[in-house]
Amino acid sequence: MEKLFHPEKVAVIGVSPSPENLGRNIVWNLIRFGFQGEVICYGRRPGHIYGHRIHNELQHLPPDIDVAVILLPAPRVIEVVEVLSRRGTQRFIIETGGFSEHGEEGERMEKALRELAHKRKLRIVGPNCIGVTDRASGLVTSFMPLDPSKIHHGSVAVIAQSGGVGLSYVNLLCEEGLGISKFVSMGNKLILNEADFLHHLEKDPNTQMVLLYLEGISNGRAFYQALKGISKPVVVHKANVTEASAQIARFHTAAMATREEILTGAIVQAGKIRVVNNNQALAAVKALHLPPLKGNNLAIVSRSGGEAVLAADAAGNMGFQLPPYPQPFLDFVQSLFRAGVIRPTNPLDLGDLFDIVKYTEIIEEIVREEIFHGVVFLIQLFDREWELVEYIMKRTREICQTYQKPISLFLGGDLQKVMGAKALGIYPVFNSPHEAVEAMGFLLTPPRLPKTPWN
Amino acid sequence: MEKLFHPEKVAVIGVSPSPENLGRNIVWNLIRFGFQGEVICYGRRPGHIYGHRIHNELQHLPPDIDVAVILLPAPRVIEVVEVLSRRGTQRFIIETGGFSEHGEEGERMEKALRELAHKRKLRIVGPNCIGVTDRASGLVTSFMPLDPSKIHHGSVAVIAQSGGVGLSYVNLLCEEGLGISKFVSMGNKLILNEADFLHHLEKDPNTQMVLLYLEGISNGRAFYQALKGISKPVVVHKANVTEASAQIARFHTAAMATREEILTGAIVQAGKIRVVNNNQALAAVKALHLPPLKGNNLAIVSRSGGEAVLAADAAGNMGFQLPPYPQPFLDFVQSLFRAGVIRPTNPLDLGDLFDIVKYTEIIEEIVREEIFHGVVFLIQLFDREWELVEYIMKRTREICQTYQKPISLFLGGDLQKVMGAKALGIYPVFNSPHEAVEAMGFLLTPPRLPKTPWN
Repeated sequence: MEKLFHPEKVAVIGVSPSPENLGRNIVWNLIRFGFQGEVICYGRRPGHIYGHRIHNELQHLPPDIDVAVILLPAPRVIEVVEVLSRRGTQRFIIETGGFSEHGEEGERMEKALRELAHKRKLRIVGPNCIGVTDRASGLVTSFMPLDPSKIHHGSVAVIAQSGGVGLSYVNLLCEEGLGISKFVSMGNKLILNEADFLHHLEKDPNTQMVLLYLEGISNGRAFYQALKGISKPVVVHKANVTEASAQIARFHTAAMATREEILTGAIVQAGKIRVVNNNQALAAVKALHLPPLKGNNLAIVSRSGGEAVLAADAAGNMGFQLPPYPQPFLDFVQSLFRAGVIRPTNPLDLGDLFDIVKYTEIIEEIVREEIFHGVVFLIQLFDREWELVEYIMKRTREICQTYQKPISLFLGGDLQKVMGAKALGIYPVFNSPHEAVEAMGFLLTPPRLPKTPWN
Repeated sequence: MEKLFHPEKVAVIGVSPSPENLGRNIVWNLIRFGFQGEVICYGRRPGHIYGHRIHNELQHLPPDIDVAVILLPAPRVIEVVEVLSRRGTQRFIIETGGFSEHGEEGERMEKALRELAHKRKLRIVGPNCIGVTDRASGLVTSFMPLDPSKIHHGSVAVIAQSGGVGLSYVNLLCEEGLGISKFVSMGNKLILNEADFLHHLEKDPNTQMVLLYLEGISNGRAFYQALKGISKPVVVHKANVTEASAQIARFHTAAMATREEILTGAIVQAGKIRVVNNNQALAAVKALHLPPLKGNNLAIVSRSGGEAVLAADAAGNMGFQLPPYPQPFLDFVQSLFRAGVIRPTNPLDLGDLFDIVKYTEIIEEIVREEIFHGVVFLIQLFDREWELVEYIMKRTREICQTYQKPISLFLGGDLQKVMGAKALGIYPVFNSPHEAVEAMGFLLTPPRLPKTPWN
């Protein structure tokens, strides 16, 4: 399995010099992402691509290929797997669509492929996928061109049944300043499935948590065992939950319908988190970068009174308590205010205090108070105050780490500046006051989610 | 009321040359936003600010001031209003906090101010607000510096009880490529409230729709009449719905608690839309740029099969129908595919078709089909395909306008590119497949919302 992500020799099968050829994008991605091993190209038509000769005979390929990436018409795939596996290749990434998701003929081909795989003990990703993106080894096999300047190193592994949804998660995680360790698009999951990748990720030193997008579960028992077996946090976004989606999901990645309540129960039982849409998934992954929330009492600190109201509404709806601030703390805050009068409420409204650096002092004082288990910190910045954003994020991270209590941070103001702050990758930033509160639910044991029609 | 937004002479009361003075930011905003009238500065200390002399005697100010913007300590406000109103000024924007939101003494001062206002028939915005931002006249009275390059002309008026939440909406609308016509921060709503501004906006030629953020309703009957009276779409985000928020809201903008079910009923009865958070509010405002949805049947067209699954789940949960595509349409699509085989499902998965321009031809063919009342169009773009995004948005807008059916567009891929596409201001772009589906609910009569704990 390790070699699947860090191969020395990769063959790309289905390359041609034609500008419309999709296989060439795989080669291009390997080059752009700085893949360290050797790339070997195969296709029917002779020629060169990015300085690589295109081999036209499978027999002429070197025998010690670690991973073969295949993008050929479906009927030709099995023959290639047969020849290459006979010559020693054990790992395949089959990107070709048109298998079981495509009807009876495709199902027949997939069945034959499965039999061959079992006979030769092959590890196959796909078919009907965009394969692997490993930021550490530079193995990037998508047949859509990806941009290395946009896909950052990070500690989150994305394992997705759909390439499109998976890529969308990769983009979103990178924009949030988190980045990815690896991304696997599993497609029809002929051989390798979510359980196999979870097993592998437990040992992956680059991965600290997993975001899983599924449209169907390959093997319920194996999945549950894998979820229980992995010590890292796992966020599961399982879609395909309505009749309307069942047909398209079957056609798309040959996913079967699941008993949703049982699945949710199993995920919670395994100590993991189920979410129902991409907003929740991102909020959960960001939250899980913070320490656990060891009780129900939150402090909310806001520069805008209105955002304090929004956060308090979210806290009420999530079942969190907002205990009053202890008097010594209020005395401390009082000494910082210019008018010398603060309203002693939780949420605390910092509207009259224009010294941004003092905000982090206030946060640290709150975190020291035993009664509070976590802090929601909402701050809008204007104009030159943005020069302090790096300081704010670093201090918040330090306080969080020192006291091991979660502080969920929302930054308001010019969105380009917010995105710039996220890109610094210092500390997770939530996108609205209500998201900053709801995020705290993911840090409880067991996790608590905002109610939606799906949960 | 017209003069409140388009004054010829504005006095800023509470300006000093000190760099910590907040009143100077009001003058700076007026200059940066190109306010066309005359600005007169008043403060206790002599000096100059941005080339304007600071007057030190109220008696020396010209008598024909249209709007006085006041940012002085609360106890000094009434005296200034008294003097200026005696000299003929009828419109005041009082930004000072420390009135009824601040306790008994503040309540007493606010009462005196109300009596004076009634006696002299004054129109007052605030107190405890950041006043008016009018993109047409350049009247921008926020005491926080705003950036004109980030606040674009548009047709949405934002009326908000909280300045912070209002500004956050202004930023978000501008990032969505929609822009604003005007923004009013109403604060404690001593005299002018949501009903007054709705009346005014009905006649405002720059405003096509209204986004209202409220923490309390000043006068239920007047509000209902105003909602019924305005022919433009209104999206109401009423917060302060839990016990946890009631206390802070009272302290923040002196908002009173409301019977939420009655309020929701009244809003629906008036043909307007109530939302429960900022994501919904933005989705609603974007949706309302599209034609109404005249039935329950949607077509979903997606480049990613996974995003088609997400959209189908959202459609199922929203109660939309996804009827099968008529055969002649499928024959047409079939002719475009390279392999010549498509899966005849709704959602339609365009995964095998790599000609982006053809996507809009497919959309137009669907819109022509009587059975469909609206189309959800989900498209991920890669690399150089982004060069076509302007074409896609323009064609989608044309088709929408020609056939008067809504097409909700989701763009996936590199988020910087997505934001660039939004900034073109050609067509609204939704942020996820599920948002693109949920948006359709706002276009039904009566509107249909995704279920949350709040509705």
